[in-house]
Amino acid sequence: MFTMSVTLAHGSGGEKTQELLTRLILSKVPLDLARTEGGHGLDILDDGAIIKLSDGKYLVITVDSYTVSPPVFPGGDIGKLAACGTLNDLAAMGAEPLAVLDSIVVEEGVSIDFVEKITESMLRVLKEENVPVIGGDLKVMPRGQLDKILITMTGVGIAEKPIIDKELRPGDKIVVTGPIAEHGAAILAAQQGIDIEKFDLKSDCACLLRPMLRLCRKYRDAIHAARDPTRGGLATVLNEWARYGDYVILIEEEKIPIRPPVRKFCEMLGIDPLYLACEGVMVLAVSPEAADEVVQELHSMGFENASIIGEVRSTSRFSKIVVCKTATGGLRIVEPLKSSLVPRIC
Amino acid sequence: MFTMSVTLAHGSGGEKTQELLTRLILSKVPLDLARTEGGHGLDILDDGAIIKLSDGKYLVITVDSYTVSPPVFPGGDIGKLAACGTLNDLAAMGAEPLAVLDSIVVEEGVSIDFVEKITESMLRVLKEENVPVIGGDLKVMPRGQLDKILITMTGVGIAEKPIIDKELRPGDKIVVTGPIAEHGAAILAAQQGIDIEKFDLKSDCACLLRPMLRLCRKYRDAIHAARDPTRGGLATVLNEWARYGDYVILIEEEKIPIRPPVRKFCEMLGIDPLYLACEGVMVLAVSPEAADEVVQELHSMGFENASIIGEVRSTSRFSKIVVCKTATGGLRIVEPLKSSLVPRIC
Repeated sequence: MFTMSVTLAHGSGGEKTQELLTRLILSKVPLDLARTEGGHGLDILDDGAIIKLSDGKYLVITVDSYTVSPPVFPGGDIGKLAACGTLNDLAAMGAEPLAVLDSIVVEEGVSIDFVEKITESMLRVLKEENVPVIGGDLKVMPRGQLDKILITMTGVGIAEKPIIDKELRPGDKIVVTGPIAEHGAAILAAQQGIDIEKFDLKSDCACLLRPMLRLCRKYRDAIHAARDPTRGGLATVLNEWARYGDYVILIEEEKIPIRPPVRKFCEMLGIDPLYLACEGVMVLAVSPEAADEVVQELHSMGFENASIIGEVRSTSRFSKIVVCKTATGGLRIVEPLKSSLVPRIC
Repeated sequence: MFTMSVTLAHGSGGEKTQELLTRLILSKVPLDLARTEGGHGLDILDDGAIIKLSDGKYLVITVDSYTVSPPVFPGGDIGKLAACGTLNDLAAMGAEPLAVLDSIVVEEGVSIDFVEKITESMLRVLKEENVPVIGGDLKVMPRGQLDKILITMTGVGIAEKPIIDKELRPGDKIVVTGPIAEHGAAILAAQQGIDIEKFDLKSDCACLLRPMLRLCRKYRDAIHAARDPTRGGLATVLNEWARYGDYVILIEEEKIPIRPPVRKFCEMLGIDPLYLACEGVMVLAVSPEAADEVVQELHSMGFENASIIGEVRSTSRFSKIVVCKTATGGLRIVEPLKSSLVPRIC
C-alpha cells in the first residue's frame, strides 16, 4: 500500500523519496523517453543527465530546487547553496560548467534587501568560478503561500567522459574529501534553536569545481564514481552505490573524518552523522592503484582531512548493503535512510 | 526609490518584474557572464538562452517555475501547463526539443493521488510530443510553508537558427495564432469563485511545438520574432518588442481574435484582455511578403482564428510604444503592465 499523503520523509532523499519518485515519474516513463539517444537520464539517476552531442562530447545537465530553512545559516545562505550545489553536481559528473539558469520564487512581503543579499551570494560564487548566468525566471507567491524564498537552479556543462557512478567496481576505494555532516548538523541546530556558535557548527557549503576538475585531469580513468552527499548524507550515497551491483561497501568508522563538535552534537541528539548532509564534500570511488595518490593530491590542494574510508567488495554471502566496522571492532549495517531526519536541509 | 518589500506586482511579468530582476540579477552580471561565447542569455531575455555548440548549431535552454493557483483548472493543470509552457518556449525559439527535466516541490500533507494526476498530465504532453524527461528533483516542504505544489521545468533543444526576437524589424506584420486571454480569464474566474462553466471560460493550455516547427521549416527566414504571451499577455510581449528599437507597434482592436465569452467576462470585470495570459497562442513578427502565407498555413493546420493584427513601424514622431486602433477608429496607447492583474497565473 502506498502512503496516502506526502510526508516529510518523502523529501528526505532516502527510500521514501525513491518510492514517491518511482510512483510519480519513474514507473510511468518508458526507457526510450527516460534518456536521449547515446545519453543517460532517469536510467542512471546520477547527479546530472547526459546528452550526447554531435562532436562526441557530452552535455551534462542538472536541476535542483533549494528550499533550505532557515534561508540564511552559519556558513552560507540559500543563494550560495544553490550555486555551489549546482556546480558540485556538474563537478561530480566530471563536467566543466558552461552556464547556469536560476528560477527564483519569492513570497509577497519579503524584504527586497533580503532577496538581494541572497542573489548577491549566488552571483558571488558564479563570478568566482567564472560561470555565466544566462537565464531564469522570477515569480511571486502571495503571503502565506510560500516560506520566504525558493530557488531552482539548472546547470549545464560539457564532459568528454562523464563520471557515471554505475561504473563503480569491486576493489574501488571509497574516498571522502573532507569532514562529513557539517551542513546537516548546522541546519538541524539552527532549526532546533540550538546555540550554533557554542557548538562550533557551520555549514561546509563550498564549491568543489576546481579541485574536482583538477582530479579529473590527472586521474579521470581511476575515478569510477563521484557524488556530493547532500540529502541523506554519506550513508545514502553509499547505499545507492551498493545497489548498482552485488556489492558490499565496507567502511571503517575510525577513518571517516568528522569534526569533534559535529560528533558531540550528533551524540547529544542521538543522530547518526552518516545521514547528515554535506554541501562541500565529494565522495569518490577510486581504483585501488590510484587511491593513495588521489588522497595525496587532495591533501596538496588543502583538503587535509581527505581520507580513504573503505572499499567496494563483491562477495557471495551479502550484497547491496553498506557495512561499517565500528571503533570497537564490531560490524554494523548502515541501513538506507527510511525517514526524514531534517526537513528542508537543502 | 525602490519598493522595500516584494509585492505581487513584482511577479506580474510587467514593469515591476523587470525592475526587480534588474536590481537582483541584471545590474549585477557583467555582459561576459550574461551569455556564453557566441551565444545569448541575459543580453536578450528571450524565451530561452542560446549556447553555441561546436558543430555550429545552437543549444536552446529555458527554465520556468510554475505556481498557478488553483493547480487544477478548466482546460488543464499545473503539470500540463509546465510541459506545454516549456515546449512552447523552445518552439518560440525555433528549437526542436531534446529533453526536459522537472523539479517538483510538494507541500507535506498533499494527497499523493493528486500529485500523481499532475505528473500524469505532465508526462502525457511529453509522451505525445515524444520528448524525453531525463532528470529532475523532488522536495517536500512542511505543511503551511508552500501552497500545495510548485513545478520548475527546464527544457533543452537544438536550433540551427534560433529565433531571436531582437531581430524584429520595421514592416513586420504581427500575427497571433489564435484567440487571446483564454488562460488568464479562466484562472482569474477560478480565483474569484466565478462560475467558469456558465461563462464558457477555459484555459487554452496547449503545446504549439508541431505547428511552430512546421512554420519554421517553411518560413524560418520570414519569421523574425516569436513569443508565447503568458504572464502580462499580448500587451507585454508587444511592449517588449517595441523597445527593441525605435519602433511603434500598431495593432487593430477589431483584428485581435477574442472569443465572445472572454470579451464579455473582461468587460464585466473591467479588465483589458490584452494583459491576460495565453498558454496556447504564439505571437509572431513576420516579414510583410510572407505574412499572408503564414496565416494561411496556420489556418490549414486548424488555427482558424490566426490573424494579422498589426505591424511594426519606425517613425520619427513616436517610439518604443504600442498603439491600438480602437473599433471606433480612435487610437490608444497600450501601456506596459504596471501592476499585477492576476497573481499566480502560471
